Amino acid sequence: MMRIAIDAMGGDRAPESVVKGAIQAVQEMDNLEITLIGDEKQIAPHLTHHERIHIIHTDEVITNEDEPVRAVRRKKNASLVLMAQEVKEKRADACISAGNTGALMSAGLFIVGRIKGIDRPALSPTIPTVDGKGFLLLDVGANVDAKPQHLLQYGIMGSIYSEKVRGVTGPKVGLLNVGTEEKKGNELSKKAFELLQNAPIHFIGNVEARDLLEGKADVVICDGFSGNIALKTIEGTALSMFSMLKDTFMKNWKTKLAAGLIKTDLKDLKKQLDYAEYGGAGLFGLAAPVIKAHGSSNDRAIFNAIQQACRIVDQQVVSVIEETVKTLQTEEE
Amino acid sequence: MMRIAIDAMGGDRAPESVVKGAIQAVQEMDNLEITLIGDEKQIAPHLTHHERIHIIHTDEVITNEDEPVRAVRRKKNASLVLMAQEVKEKRADACISAGNTGALMSAGLFIVGRIKGIDRPALSPTIPTVDGKGFLLLDVGANVDAKPQHLLQYGIMGSIYSEKVRGVTGPKVGLLNVGTEEKKGNELSKKAFELLQNAPIHFIGNVEARDLLEGKADVVICDGFSGNIALKTIEGTALSMFSMLKDTFMKNWKTKLAAGLIKTDLKDLKKQLDYAEYGGAGLFGLAAPVIKAHGSSNDRAIFNAIQQACRIVDQQVVSVIEETVKTLQTEEE
Repeated sequence: MMRIAIDAMGGDRAPESVVKGAIQAVQEMDNLEITLIGDEKQIAPHLTHHERIHIIHTDEVITNEDEPVRAVRRKKNASLVLMAQEVKEKRADACISAGNTGALMSAGLFIVGRIKGIDRPALSPTIPTVDGKGFLLLDVGANVDAKPQHLLQYGIMGSIYSEKVRGVTGPKVGLLNVGTEEKKGNELSKKAFELLQNAPIHFIGNVEARDLLEGKADVVICDGFSGNIALKTIEGTALSMFSMLKDTFMKNWKTKLAAGLIKTDLKDLKKQLDYAEYGGAGLFGLAAPVIKAHGSSNDRAIFNAIQQACRIVDQQVVSVIEETVKTLQTEEE
Repeated sequence: MMRIAIDAMGGDRAPESVVKGAIQAVQEMDNLEITLIGDEKQIAPHLTHHERIHIIHTDEVITNEDEPVRAVRRKKNASLVLMAQEVKEKRADACISAGNTGALMSAGLFIVGRIKGIDRPALSPTIPTVDGKGFLLLDVGANVDAKPQHLLQYGIMGSIYSEKVRGVTGPKVGLLNVGTEEKKGNELSKKAFELLQNAPIHFIGNVEARDLLEGKADVVICDGFSGNIALKTIEGTALSMFSMLKDTFMKNWKTKLAAGLIKTDLKDLKKQLDYAEYGGAGLFGLAAPVIKAHGSSNDRAIFNAIQQACRIVDQQVVSVIEETVKTLQTEEE
C-alpha cells in the first residue's frame, strides 16, 4: 500500500481541489491510501468518497503571507507541518502541498530531512517544451547561493528522476549558461561545468536560456537564483503574450471572427504550455518525496501530483539517489 | 556637428543594412557626420548618398566565431577595433556595432576606457513591455560576476539614461529578485538592495521576473548572469510561442481562414515585441557612448541606434554619470 499525506489547506482552491484530486486518485489507484491534513469542517463537504482517504484535523494554517522559516517553527499544528510529520514518522511515504513554497522547503529540510550526501535540496518543476515532452529545471529557488558541488548533485538527482519517473532513457543534462561554449559563464558555472563533465550522467554541456523551450536538454541545471529568474520569465512572457494576443483578437469584427474560428485550437496551445499537466515541482534531495503543487492547482493538477509522488515512491528514487551519491563520494576518496 | 563611427561589417545584414541606416540618418539629421569602417568595395555599392558619410577602409573583420578578447588584441585593423580607436582619439563622439558582442565589450573596455568611478560597464538593452513603453535591463552579460557596488552603479547609470535619453521623469528603478519582499534573494541582491535604497535614484525595491513585461519598473538592475538568462528567456519564450502559434494557424481550413483575417494585426503584435524598435543596447560606464545593435539589425534598427547614440551625446549622459558618481564618492568619504 502506497501512503500519501496531503496538505488539504494549501493552494488558492483548497481544500476543494485537493479533496477532489485525492478522490480521483484513490478511485484510479487501488494500492493508494491518502491522508488529508486540514480543517475537517471544510474538507467534509467535498469528501464524497471515503474509502482509503483519512483526515487529520487541524485548525492551524500557514498562509502565503507567513514568513516561511518562522511559520514552520511556530505553527506546530499547521496542516503543512503535520503533513511533513506524517512522512518523518513513516506513517506516509510521500507528501504534497500547494501552499507556501518557502514553508514547504523549510518543513522539508527541518522535519523530513536531507538524503545523506546531498547538501541542499533543489526545487525541480517540469517545464513544457514546444515538442510536448517537457524538461526538468533545477534548482528554481530552494538554494539561491549555490556552490559548484550543489549543481553537480542537482545533475545527478535530475538525471535519476528523469530516467526513473519520466521514463527518459539516458537523459541529456545541460547547464544553464550565458553561452554554449565550454569556457563561458560566471565562476560558479565554470566550476560546475568541470564537475558535471566527470559525473555519471549524460552531460551535454552549456544550454542557453534562449533554447529552453526547444527541449535541447531533458534536465537543465542552475543555481536557485537564475533558475527562479528563468522560470518566472517563461511564465511572465507567456502570460503577457497571451494577454496581448487576446487584445489583438478583440480589436475589430475581423479579428473577432478569427478568434471564433481558432478558439478551440488556441485552448489546446494554452494547455500545452500549462505545466500543471506535468505534475508538481519535486523537492529533490530530501529523505522522502516532497512535492510542491502549483498554488493555483485545480483537482486535475493535484491528481497529477499524487500520481507523480506515487511513481517516485514506486521507483525508489530516493534510495537510488542515495546509492549514487555514495558511489560518488567513494570515488573521490 | 555630431560625429558617429560605425562598424560597417558587423551584423548579419552588413554592410548593406549599416550603410542604408546611415544614409537615412544623415538625411534626417542635419548636424550628423558618419564614419563607416569596413571594406570599401562592399560598402560602395550601397552608398547612394555621400554627403557627411566617410569611409575608413579596412579588410580585417572580427567574426562572431572569434574569441572576443584575443580578437580585439590581435586583429588590430578590424573594423570594430578601428571604430573604437576613432572614439578614443576623439575623432568620433560615439560608436555603434552590430557585430561580436564580446569583442565590442572588450574594445569598449580596453580602447575607449571606463568612466572614472565606474568599476564595470553594463550592457543595457531596452526591452518591450505590454504597454509599449519598454524598460531598460542592465546588466545582461558584460559582467557575469557582479558585486553589490556594481549593481548600485548600474542603478545610477540606468536612471540617468532613462531620464535623459528615454524622457522618463523620475524613472522607477527595480532590482531583479526572486521575490518582492525586502529580505529576499541571494547574498548579492540583499547587499545591493541596501546600497540602492540609499542611492540618489527612485528605487522601488525588488521586481520579480514574472512582472518584467508588465513594465512595473523603468529600469531593472541585475548581475550580468541573471540578466542574460532573463533577456534570452524572454526572447526564446516569445519565439517559441510565435512558432507554436504559427503551427496552430496552419492546422486546418478554419484556422487558416482565421490566420488570413488576423495576419496584419499579428504583425503589429510582433512589431510591438521587436526590440530593434527601441534602438541598440548601450554599454554604459564607458568614457564615450558605445552602442551594440542587434546582430540581425536591418536598416531601420541601425537608424534607431544612430538616433539613440546622438541623443546620448546630445544629453551629455557620460559626463552626467561621471558627475553623479563623483558626488557619491564624496558622500561616502
